Amino acid sequence: MNKNISQDAYAAAGVDIKAGQEAVRRMRSHVRTARTKGVLGDLGAFGGLFRLPSGYSQPVLVSSTDGVGTKVRLAVGMGSYDTVGQDLVNHSVNDILVQGACPLFFMDYFATGKLNPLVAELIVKGLAKACRENQCALLGGETAEMPGVYHGEDFDLAGTIVGIVEKKLVIDGQRIRPGDVLLGLPSSGLHTNGYSLVRRILFQQMGFNLQTFIPELSLALGDELMKVHRSYLSVVQALLKKIRIKGLAHLTGGGWLENIPRILPSACQALIEKDSWPVLPVFKYLQDAGRLDEAVMYRTFNMGIGMVMVVARSEVDQVIQIVKTLREPVYQVGEIVKGPKGVHLV
Amino acid sequence: MNKNISQDAYAAAGVDIKAGQEAVRRMRSHVRTARTKGVLGDLGAFGGLFRLPSGYSQPVLVSSTDGVGTKVRLAVGMGSYDTVGQDLVNHSVNDILVQGACPLFFMDYFATGKLNPLVAELIVKGLAKACRENQCALLGGETAEMPGVYHGEDFDLAGTIVGIVEKKLVIDGQRIRPGDVLLGLPSSGLHTNGYSLVRRILFQQMGFNLQTFIPELSLALGDELMKVHRSYLSVVQALLKKIRIKGLAHLTGGGWLENIPRILPSACQALIEKDSWPVLPVFKYLQDAGRLDEAVMYRTFNMGIGMVMVVARSEVDQVIQIVKTLREPVYQVGEIVKGPKGVHLV
Repeated sequence: MNKNISQDAYAAAGVDIKAGQEAVRRMRSHVRTARTKGVLGDLGAFGGLFRLPSGYSQPVLVSSTDGVGTKVRLAVGMGSYDTVGQDLVNHSVNDILVQGACPLFFMDYFATGKLNPLVAELIVKGLAKACRENQCALLGGETAEMPGVYHGEDFDLAGTIVGIVEKKLVIDGQRIRPGDVLLGLPSSGLHTNGYSLVRRILFQQMGFNLQTFIPELSLALGDELMKVHRSYLSVVQALLKKIRIKGLAHLTGGGWLENIPRILPSACQALIEKDSWPVLPVFKYLQDAGRLDEAVMYRTFNMGIGMVMVVARSEVDQVIQIVKTLREPVYQVGEIVKGPKGVHLV
Repeated sequence: MNKNISQDAYAAAGVDIKAGQEAVRRMRSHVRTARTKGVLGDLGAFGGLFRLPSGYSQPVLVSSTDGVGTKVRLAVGMGSYDTVGQDLVNHSVNDILVQGACPLFFMDYFATGKLNPLVAELIVKGLAKACRENQCALLGGETAEMPGVYHGEDFDLAGTIVGIVEKKLVIDGQRIRPGDVLLGLPSSGLHTNGYSLVRRILFQQMGFNLQTFIPELSLALGDELMKVHRSYLSVVQALLKKIRIKGLAHLTGGGWLENIPRILPSACQALIEKDSWPVLPVFKYLQDAGRLDEAVMYRTFNMGIGMVMVVARSEVDQVIQIVKTLREPVYQVGEIVKGPKGVHLV
């Protein structure tokens, strides 16, 4: 009875406590699938508990917070909620992988104007799936119902990953030298950046909608744009067992031109050969449709390569060999030369 | 030149790269003030690096993600952006403190429709201030400009804290027994929960605005409602050096009735004496104005006590003594009795 009064008072204020309880119940079954041996205790505690793995002599935690940007609007438009969680976790895994870290756990933040327990469940289902695939615990999170801040079906999804690396194995790019080689691993599509620009070009300028079939892509736009941001964990971990990777750049917001310089020492320039990998059709299509300058493209998009690795020239053959055994493509996309720090496209 | 083309394309899509760069510059100066000795490397890396403190034999990480809820709308209404960051960090510190953890680092997520660098700076200034006060590093974060998701001046602010505790010192309530005593530390006001309900009562039902002066509170409503969520770190840490605290409950969303049961073992009931502490005027005012049932009040609000500690009766005098030396009030608010797990108000 008292509980109902409380629910009524809150419901009148736009906060649905029953929906919250149902969402928790639905989410919990998925979160349980993404436990790892480090997780202590159960859900419902104030904070999530994670026992640090042993065997590190100077353990360093690596953490990154990110969102999925305006890709959330496409999810709403598609009524497709089960992949943005994967986008977010995979993106986050890559962001700490570039410093050599293995994921330990992930914490999510899901906020919306009116909590729909089914949507919350699908979001968390995607988060849990990607966590399992990356051997990362989904340790906790927050589901916030915020009437007045989020409108209609709109929501936001963000999260924080925490990983670990031995201090002397942190990858920071400082050993990169002229003569080193840049190798690229393919992306699955747009990944998680540039969506405000993409929406403007395709929906506002071209007047398309998510159902528009694009012959050049052999797909409806919605299906192309919702392709899941992939994780590079398994490939990079396999390489790190055998190879010294000197630098790793995750090509997200800022594309090639802003992400590669983040790992370069001074007087090192990345010479990128643009035709050394297959540019995905979606990027060619966007460039034509939006009449975008090449520099805009390489400053915004991954162009078909989601992860760039810098290795000594002497190790290139072995890298290619190892990646091939994983049935993954890998492309030699450029080299490091002496010059002002930056990226030079040729 | 190319950069301008890029900026123009993005600006047309509602994303202002120049504003982003200015925001980063402004935020950076504040983030620098919240470094601790664990922080490795500088800003600009893909992930933040944090060296684990030594001296733990079985280190357990404790993590919590939270937002400030619809208190963000009040911040917009007041044009007052420098305290919600403090609310968020202090709230988070308390959420892991209840399991015995000391904060290591904090990661923030700030999202808005149109990035205003001055607002971003004030938000981060507040985050950094609270991080310094809690000896917690502001290790990194994400600033997202999401046109179409957030409207007008609206924004959202969330974050994740990571702390550490020795495994055998984790506080989980399992040693709580009938006869133990509940002690309460005062809150500063509403803290960070119940704001959707508060907005409905005061603004929709009563027709007040943020400038309305309320004689019973001796304050304008905006000033009352924006009072900063306080941290209990220093008091609880001082106690933990001398006392075995069996359970800690942070009274946030769910108030007394939902938070205290989270730490109770089965067959333990918390008997709470309602007139054992001074209920803050804001709660009396809200109860009258909203004609809210007592159960709603205790299920939603902290009623003037933000942290409840459960200790053995034999340690009560010492707790009171220690807290007094810190010039803090502390109230004996109830006791544990045998009975069905839950809270009984008397």
